[in-house]
Amino acid sequence: MSTHEATIYRKTELVGTSSVGFDDAVRHAVARAQKTLRHVQWFEVKEQRGRIDGEAIEYQVTLEIGFALE
Amino acid sequence: MSTHEATIYRKTELVGTSSVGFDDAVRHAVARAQKTLRHVQWFEVKEQRGRIDGEAIEYQVTLEIGFALE
Amino acid sequence: MSTHEATIYRKTELVGTSSVGFDDAVRHAVARAQKTLRHVQWFEVKEQRGRIDGEAIEYQVTLEIGFALE
Amino acid sequence: MSTHEATIYRKTELVGTSSVGFDDAVRHAVARAQKTLRHVQWFEVKEQRGRIDGEAIEYQVTLEIGFALE
Amino acid sequence: MSTHEATIYRKTELVGTSSVGFDDAVRHAVARAQKTLRHVQWFEVKEQRGRIDGEAIEYQVTLEIGFALE
Amino acid sequence: MSTHEATIYRKTELVGTSSVGFDDAVRHAVARAQKTLRHVQWFEVKEQRGRIDGEAIEYQVTLEIGFALE
Amino acid sequence: MSTHEATIYRKTELVGTSSVGFDDAVRHAVARAQKTLRHVQWFEVKEQRGRIDGEAIEYQVTLEIGFALE
Amino acid sequence: MSTHEATIYRKTELVGTSSVGFDDAVRHAVARAQKTLRHVQWFEVKEQRGRIDGEAIEYQVTLEIGFALE
Amino acid sequence: MSTHEATIYRKTELVGTSSVGFDDAVRHAVARAQKTLRHVQWFEVKEQRGRIDGEAIEYQVTLEIGFALE
Amino acid sequence: MSTHEATIYRKTELVGTSSVGFDDAVRHAVARAQKTLRHVQWFEVKEQRGRIDGEAIEYQVTLEIGFALE
Amino acid sequence: MSTHEATIYRKTELVGTSSVGFDDAVRHAVARAQKTLRHVQWFEVKEQRGRIDGEAIEYQVTLEIGFALE
Amino acid sequence: MSTHEATIYRKTELVGTSSVGFDDAVRHAVARAQKTLRHVQWFEVKEQRGRIDGEAIEYQVTLEIGFALE
Repeated sequence: MSTHEATIYRKTELVGTSSVGFDDAVRHAVARAQKTLRHVQWFEVKEQRGRIDGEAIEYQVTLEIGFALE
Repeated sequence: MSTHEATIYRKTELVGTSSVGFDDAVRHAVARAQKTLRHVQWFEVKEQRGRIDGEAIEYQVTLEIGFALE
Repeated sequence: MSTHEATIYRKTELVGTSSVGFDDAVRHAVARAQKTLRHVQWFEVKEQRGRIDGEAIEYQVTLEIGFALE
Repeated sequence: MSTHEATIYRKTELVGTSSVGFDDAVRHAVARAQKTLRHVQWFEVKEQRGRIDGEAIEYQVTLEIGFALE
Repeated sequence: MSTHEATIYRKTELVGTSSVGFDDAVRHAVARAQKTLRHVQWFEVKEQRGRIDGEAIEYQVTLEIGFALE
Repeated sequence: MSTHEATIYRKTELVGTSSVGFDDAVRHAVARAQKTLRHVQWFEVKEQRGRIDGEAIEYQVTLEIGFALE
Repeated sequence: MSTHEATIYRKTELVGTSSVGFDDAVRHAVARAQKTLRHVQWFEVKEQRGRIDGEAIEYQVTLEIGFALE
Repeated sequence: MSTHEATIYRKTELVGTSSVGFDDAVRHAVARAQKTLRHVQWFEVKEQRGRIDGEAIEYQVTLEIGFALE
Repeated sequence: MSTHEATIYRKTELVGTSSVGFDDAVRHAVARAQKTLRHVQWFEVKEQRGRIDGEAIEYQVTLEIGFALE
Repeated sequence: MSTHEATIYRKTELVGTSSVGFDDAVRHAVARAQKTLRHVQWFEVKEQRGRIDGEAIEYQVTLEIGFALE
Repeated sequence: MSTHEATIYRKTELVGTSSVGFDDAVRHAVARAQKTLRHVQWFEVKEQRGRIDGEAIEYQVTLEIGFALE
Repeated sequence: MSTHEATIYRKTELVGTSSVGFDDAVRHAVARAQKTLRHVQWFEVKEQRGRIDGEAIEYQVTLEIGFALE
């Protein structure tokens, strides 16, 4: 454990969607976060819901995504 | 946004099951709801659990399913 | 077991909406419940959210509505 | 575990009451559910409260009762 | 992985205030979000509290506001 | 231990009611608290429910009300 | 603002105990509340726990007890 | 309060069952814990549910049971 | 375990503050409770928050404090 | 007290991981539990989170796994 | 709608860390927020956890930090 | 199914105590866990309460402690 300046992390909340399933929706959200953020390190699932349009299901997963601040 | 009579929705609680996984259990519950209900529009995952019988796993997902009332 | 027949209640979950506000959305849901149910006696607010479409806001309130079974 | 059509369950919310106690209130609610529903299989206690009228106490227990859909 | 580009949403947390009431505080927070964000689509009420200063009440509502990312 | 005397607050739980709406029920509860308590500074909404009697609705809001102890 | 004086209730938190069971512990707490409070009208079970001392069990139930303010 | 080595407790989670009621199910779980654990000191009720098989009800109570480590 | 009149406890909610830290804020709240209450036996931390004023931090801890009723 | 010996269950908490998805992480945790425990009968999902390391995602699911005690 | 411009606040979520303790981790997070944000006014503790690496403990506290928007 | 052997973790629940404060109580619980468990990697604070005996306060913190299974 380093004795240096303590690391500070920030958490941002994204909703990933997918027509395939929840795991896929997670991957979409993580990939989108990594487009604009560095040091993305973990996620926490906060909510799982979905939109139904006839036969089609849109899986929606709300994630808190944690990243280290420089 | 319409100025007409405000829409009222109802939520019913179904438990979908599957030996494949949670996404599949969701599809089963939504399909069953659509057999008897019209204007089914969304679902919210309330609980995820499962039954274990030797090597077999039954994934069980509790959904609140929302539909518009006529 | 108690001697006289104990009352049993049922709770159903409705989502009322309104472009005016949450109190109005509650009134819509209660009125809709009373169209099809008798002995409606109380409600509990479970969730408050809303849809935003430009300048328009649709207030959405999820109620559990309790009524006595005959 | 059967490989056949996956079972779907529904959950309905009843409030049982009793002047004796909570276990008795549970029995009342379960008995009432079995009057109109088939394949009633489990219950979950969601809330326990009560009404007080002088020396008399009415125990009120809110149950989610699960039953298999045909 | 789904074929078409799945929509990703972000949620930001604002606290609206008003001396009139909670509905008014919601309108203030939504209006402020729309000043700096595009594709604002929904809100969820997380907390309702208020500050009391003699006869004056400041209603404070915490909203999570969802908007689509481009 | 901090040098100056740190302020201690107490929270009491009141249920305000109104036939108009929740904001009005809040005002009733705050006004009642200020009749017997000094230094009333904030409130937190804990629950919103209501009683239904035919066409009449009684809005009931449970507040925790904070006040500074002398 | 509603015309007639709207009722205001207060909630106090008591822990009833009993060596018999939870229903009995509820009765003890309600009886104690009625010793010092008037217009006691309802209770809500917040927590159920207990102390174990060899063969003896002390059932402990935390109740919020509501009463009308004059 | 002792100045000696601070006591450490562990919590284990048991589900007691009974055909009589919840208090009885608690007694079963506590008795089972005391068969294999020493210094059992308290329990916390985490969940109350049950299995329904025709006229028979199996009350199921989930307890966290605390015991001091030597 | 005594077979005498079962003990009844009451819980009151205090917010302790400190510029040092949360443990210190707890001590302040407990000390204030003991000024006016007898048989104070335990506390439960319900919330931890704080006020920030430039470099100064006021740690605020909400406690439920339990005491035996005579 | 019920006549026949009522079954007692224990719940243990495991975290399953997988680079594929949550269903797979569940299977890993259940399989590991069955290596050392008998009469494993059910699981409940308590939390879903994950670790992100560049393109790689480790899905982590916290399960409570229930098994019958002999 | 209230006459004067009602204040709007935003909440951002930071995780402070420290090898000393939770109070110190709070200070780190608040100080980091004040580096990039103005009008920082309060914080709410959402979660307390930590990483263990042999003898070393890293205390991690998740805070929601509120600041006024201009 | 993932190819390499995915790590499985277990979580055990300990209550640390201290007359100094919560951070100290955490250290006691972690140290006790490391006496009998290997690969102890993290903890999560579940509850903070305490016992009051006159001037003395015993801080009690409930931790879930995670460790990797071999």
